[in-house]
Amino acid sequence: MKDGSALDWYVEGPGRRVGYEDSTAIDWIFEYTKERQRLRVLYSSSTGVLGYVRQFLDASQIWILLILTGLASGLFAAAIDVVSVWLGDIKTGYCSNGPDGGQFYLNRHFCCFGYDELSQCQDWVSWSRAVHITSAGGKWFIEYFFFLLFSVLFGVTASLLVKEYALYAKHSGIPEIKTILGGFVIRRFMGTWTLVIKSLGLCLAVASGMWLGKEGPLVHVACCCANLFMKLFGSINGNEARKREVLSAAAAAGISVAFGSPIGGVLFSLEQLSYYFPDKTMWQSFVCAMTAAVALQAFDPFRSGNLVLYQVTYSTGWHDFELIPFAMLGIFGGIYGGLFIKMNMKVAQWKKAAPWLPTPIVQVVFVALLTALVNYPNMYMRAQSSALVYSLFAECSEVLDDQFGLCKMGAASGGTIVLLLFAALVGFFLASITFGLQIPAGIILPSMAIGALFGRAVGIIMEIWVHNHPKFFAFQNCEPDIPCVTPGTYAIIGAAAALGGVTRMTVSIVVIMFELTGALTYVLPIMIAVMVSKWVGDAFGKRGIYESWIQFNEYPFLDNSDETPIPDIPVSQIMTRIEDLVVLTATGHTIESLVNVLATHPYRGFPVVSDPREAVLLGYISRAELQYNLHSSTQGPRSLPPETEAFFSHQPLADPRTTLDLRPWMDQTPITLPSRASLLLTANYFQKLGLRYVLFSDRGVLQGLLTKEDVWYVLNGAEETRRTNANDGTELPSGLTREGADGEERGLLNGNEGEDLTPIQGDSDIPIL
Amino acid sequence: MKDGSALDWYVEGPGRRVGYEDSTAIDWIFEYTKERQRLRVLYSSSTGVLGYVRQFLDASQIWILLILTGLASGLFAAAIDVVSVWLGDIKTGYCSNGPDGGQFYLNRHFCCFGYDELSQCQDWVSWSRAVHITSAGGKWFIEYFFFLLFSVLFGVTASLLVKEYALYAKHSGIPEIKTILGGFVIRRFMGTWTLVIKSLGLCLAVASGMWLGKEGPLVHVACCCANLFMKLFGSINGNEARKREVLSAAAAAGISVAFGSPIGGVLFSLEQLSYYFPDKTMWQSFVCAMTAAVALQAFDPFRSGNLVLYQVTYSTGWHDFELIPFAMLGIFGGIYGGLFIKMNMKVAQWKKAAPWLPTPIVQVVFVALLTALVNYPNMYMRAQSSALVYSLFAECSEVLDDQFGLCKMGAASGGTIVLLLFAALVGFFLASITFGLQIPAGIILPSMAIGALFGRAVGIIMEIWVHNHPKFFAFQNCEPDIPCVTPGTYAIIGAAAALGGVTRMTVSIVVIMFELTGALTYVLPIMIAVMVSKWVGDAFGKRGIYESWIQFNEYPFLDNSDETPIPDIPVSQIMTRIEDLVVLTATGHTIESLVNVLATHPYRGFPVVSDPREAVLLGYISRAELQYNLHSSTQGPRSLPPETEAFFSHQPLADPRTTLDLRPWMDQTPITLPSRASLLLTANYFQKLGLRYVLFSDRGVLQGLLTKEDVWYVLNGAEETRRTNANDGTELPSGLTREGADGEERGLLNGNEGEDLTPIQGDSDIPIL
Repeated sequence: MKDGSALDWYVEGPGRRVGYEDSTAIDWIFEYTKERQRLRVLYSSSTGVLGYVRQFLDASQIWILLILTGLASGLFAAAIDVVSVWLGDIKTGYCSNGPDGGQFYLNRHFCCFGYDELSQCQDWVSWSRAVHITSAGGKWFIEYFFFLLFSVLFGVTASLLVKEYALYAKHSGIPEIKTILGGFVIRRFMGTWTLVIKSLGLCLAVASGMWLGKEGPLVHVACCCANLFMKLFGSINGNEARKREVLSAAAAAGISVAFGSPIGGVLFSLEQLSYYFPDKTMWQSFVCAMTAAVALQAFDPFRSGNLVLYQVTYSTGWHDFELIPFAMLGIFGGIYGGLFIKMNMKVAQWKKAAPWLPTPIVQVVFVALLTALVNYPNMYMRAQSSALVYSLFAECSEVLDDQFGLCKMGAASGGTIVLLLFAALVGFFLASITFGLQIPAGIILPSMAIGALFGRAVGIIMEIWVHNHPKFFAFQNCEPDIPCVTPGTYAIIGAAAALGGVTRMTVSIVVIMFELTGALTYVLPIMIAVMVSKWVGDAFGKRGIYESWIQFNEYPFLDNSDETPIPDIPVSQIMTRIEDLVVLTATGHTIESLVNVLATHPYRGFPVVSDPREAVLLGYISRAELQYNLHSSTQGPRSLPPETEAFFSHQPLADPRTTLDLRPWMDQTPITLPSRASLLLTANYFQKLGLRYVLFSDRGVLQGLLTKEDVWYVLNGAEETRRTNANDGTELPSGLTREGADGEERGLLNGNEGEDLTPIQGDSDIPIL
Repeated sequence: MKDGSALDWYVEGPGRRVGYEDSTAIDWIFEYTKERQRLRVLYSSSTGVLGYVRQFLDASQIWILLILTGLASGLFAAAIDVVSVWLGDIKTGYCSNGPDGGQFYLNRHFCCFGYDELSQCQDWVSWSRAVHITSAGGKWFIEYFFFLLFSVLFGVTASLLVKEYALYAKHSGIPEIKTILGGFVIRRFMGTWTLVIKSLGLCLAVASGMWLGKEGPLVHVACCCANLFMKLFGSINGNEARKREVLSAAAAAGISVAFGSPIGGVLFSLEQLSYYFPDKTMWQSFVCAMTAAVALQAFDPFRSGNLVLYQVTYSTGWHDFELIPFAMLGIFGGIYGGLFIKMNMKVAQWKKAAPWLPTPIVQVVFVALLTALVNYPNMYMRAQSSALVYSLFAECSEVLDDQFGLCKMGAASGGTIVLLLFAALVGFFLASITFGLQIPAGIILPSMAIGALFGRAVGIIMEIWVHNHPKFFAFQNCEPDIPCVTPGTYAIIGAAAALGGVTRMTVSIVVIMFELTGALTYVLPIMIAVMVSKWVGDAFGKRGIYESWIQFNEYPFLDNSDETPIPDIPVSQIMTRIEDLVVLTATGHTIESLVNVLATHPYRGFPVVSDPREAVLLGYISRAELQYNLHSSTQGPRSLPPETEAFFSHQPLADPRTTLDLRPWMDQTPITLPSRASLLLTANYFQKLGLRYVLFSDRGVLQGLLTKEDVWYVLNGAEETRRTNANDGTELPSGLTREGADGEERGLLNGNEGEDLTPIQGDSDIPIL
């Protein structure tokens, strides 16, 4: 039996000849069964040396794909780093083709390479010098003007690119990736155009100086790379489950290059994204993440050997008394996270409910202008967030270029504390209106910056306290000659806590911070702060920022964590009862009548029963399968007339040439539960087995049906809304498109033409055909 | 409704009032449902401030337990480190109560603290000096004699302790822990006595100098600690699923203290042990592993600040040409692993099949004596493995006390290479007869030592080659003045590869090595070597050493990796058909007849059907439940006579005071599949949903039954054996005790009195009662 022969239809199992439609759930068990069957054919058909070579080539495909993905992720990350730094510097001036080798394509750092004092560097031409302004006030004004101009220009270009070429490139992409890895199909979300626009847009958005990060979007970029290379490998591209394994590895590579933290990336992928994966995925993720980190190291975008700007090392340890301020940073992180999510969601809901708002592009202009206006006068906010985070994290003895004056004499003063706290507060407001704009934008770096600003302020307070009261009983263990408190460590712990509060991740944050600092010393305080932060954050609401956006966008993501509250009700209360289902009978249909059923009912599949009175369940046929087979049997060689009899059960007297036997395309062992089963058990079936639908039958008689989407509605408390909609008698498309009016937020899925798997309204005239 | 009231029987759900018997499978879904119900009662019953306090206390229990477990694991690891080093030194002499403060309880290092040359240290009295021998030959002989004496003494004491007090303390314990975490009950495996004996025995076994390690057994020790503390927390101890979550965290703590690698421990637990766990387990493991590492650091057993003896740092990088020898080390590691598993299993099978072999204790004496005889003359093998591994790993510039002469002038010679390779070979043979003896013994450290010996040899070869042919084209990138090749890095890569070959782990090994060396530099070569090693090892056989022992011991561990080959057959071919099942009818039974059924049939549960002709499935009642209820209804307040009618269906006319309604104790929605379902789908049910048994029914009529053990037999190819046994007409107890004759290897489960859940033989006289 060879691949691609007609027999495969039978081999492949029932009802899945046609791929998944957009925004439908995939069937994990079926996909993995398909893969097992493919391997069985491969291993039984290929023997001898050539056979071994074929098997080897087949097994090595995944590794080639992972390495390619890792290399591409490293390359894209390096390019984005370089371009965004260059664009960011353009806001202050440009590199003239000077005698020292200056070239327009150099950023400020490389343009002035070799100068100790940046002010002595003549190759770098500030905009005030370019327009020949010399007075101090004029200089300030001109530079402010160009700063504003470029910030808005970059922001609006990013937004225009997204609007014109790839709407999927907006936001961070993590909620969507989470949904896709959870087993849903969102077509074109990871296409080539998305990759190009997201990368370009990311450079511009970061350079615009808005309060956003590139860390989350890099995950999307890495997944786009994986999706692109996947097309080269048919056996992986043809299996939705294996595709998701590769995407989960690519996500690890994204975080790996974002933080220079391969292990952190693997754990991020496991903790935040993975859904239904076997153990081997961990190793695949690790290889992909490691390749990406090595590639980034080889490109060395910062020419410093560091993978990220804010990598630091600490030479001092911490003292027991510091655990109290560290835990307080945890509390702050939790409060920040909780408030940020609430505020960001409020902004999103308000925008959704306000039709009089200007277009998304004008919104970007407004936020970019506001941010630039506020940023420029504040020393800490004028530079890029990553440079700020580095300065906040760093130990003073390690800092060469004290850009923010955090290490100069007298920095440990009330004035600095007020400035830091003010910057944190302003950052909080700006970040909460920025995350959700129509540009590529992540929330990880802004959260880290806000946490680091607050943490550094607390660190300076501690420093002053220890300095003024060296005899206080808690400070007994401080050695007299060396600094007792390192404010930089408070910044990194504050950043970890804030990140924990916003994303509700735990292990991966600690590991990322561990890899950023490279020492076990600070793992314990970071762990305590992240733990406290998660507890405090959970008191505000169980959902992290990504889950909140999933819920806001009504993505059909069925959370499989065991903390999801599941009502204690029998499933018979919520299933779609047989009276409300459109079911097919095994006999009595013609091609024409089935075509009519398809035309009348939008549902994605139909249960098949023996006859209307008994309703003994025989199987389930999907809409796509039925459509394809009806169409192909009336065309081409067979050319059956519309009045041909079509049946779903054994008909001993039927002539196979003049009738249509649809049994091979029907799933003859659909998964069933008794209707007395609890919702908890049913939800377990969906979560653990990765099903698309479950049929309910008592003693073989069909009682009802429940789809993954239905369970999602129930678990998300949207049951009431759904019933209301259904009773309107309006056709009920899938959860993704129900509220089609809001082109703004929902434009993401405009391409979706698919419809719901099941009937939910009860207004069907012919419940049993 | 209060906890512990009689009503709980009904609340708790059917059929699980009585706990699991020994060596039965647990029902994960039921356990998690029970936990959800417990929480629902807790959260609905407790309101107000006091309620919040109760909820907080309930939620914090798990964290207190994890922290206690972490602290205890750190303490035990430190104690085992200190005692085993002291005992190991006793083999060469003792610390006299000298003028410099020497005390008998000091090991050689601390006894001679302050001396640069150990030979100058007078407090340490070698045995030759103790018995006043001065001639060189006599000294050598006496010291050899005492070395042998103590080695055998330590070995035999460890073995005696294990035999007399806790047989479960033998071996590494990881296969058993894997089986337990996979959902099986092995009573007393983690009891207090096991903890005490395993810890003591481990010190003695390590000190005996045999080729074994303490890393694996430390996982068992940590799990014992967790099990001990768990008894303090009723809500956790009462739930088999939550118990397993804690044990999985404890296993992470075990590896964390074994290697000073908390993240490696978490990944080890995820990769090697975890089975059916929600995401939150990762964070719990992390907290437990981190606490353990911090506790170990606080105890600082080596007074060096390092958590393990063989922690190293490298100051140099690697060159591209070295990737070829690194990959060769990977090949070696895979071959070593494959051969080791084959050899070790052959030895175990041979021992099992040879009844004339001496008792386990004599075997230990023999191996200990042989090891000591071989070890003493070989410089590399005389010391403890951990000291050897440190010397092999270390960069020469870092080594202070060059115990093995690996850094002295002329060490890079053919002689050293031969000695190293010889030690590796001898170590291989000794380790393969040692792992499986009746003492606490792990395989991780010996594998690392063998890999490191081989790796160091390869490193020295490379060093000589570069030294002799500096102009060779591959060596162009070497800088002239500094050493181009660091043999220590070859040792660590060899160790990683050997460990990968034996255990088939990947991510966790790389992370453990990363944490041992503390730098990203060598992660890429280690990753490549581990990957190659796994590929080569898998060519010898898919099972790692732990899985091989699980199979050898016939533990009912149902592997849930998707690489398990599952035959493509319908489940109807292997299920126990209804004709061979002992089923109960809903009516027509009395208490006496049911007692008779229990007395006649050993099965662990009985399906309940409507009546013999129709066999419509009504539910399933477990043996334990039936037994308990029949017993309690004939005793105490009810005291029903034996002729009382007992039924499993609604009897409207029955008087509840004079009849026994067993419905509340029957599982009324047992999980069913159609008998046409494939074995693959059925196996998925067991693996993903964690079930104990599945019933098969077509249109409500019971067709057959399959238990987790049955599936295990089929997947392990033991189906044939089983059928043969069954046809003998012998009673068929569970897989764990079928071959009860081999008290040696199977003594582990001697306590098992439980019997199989299902009937497997077909010689039942009354198939339907």
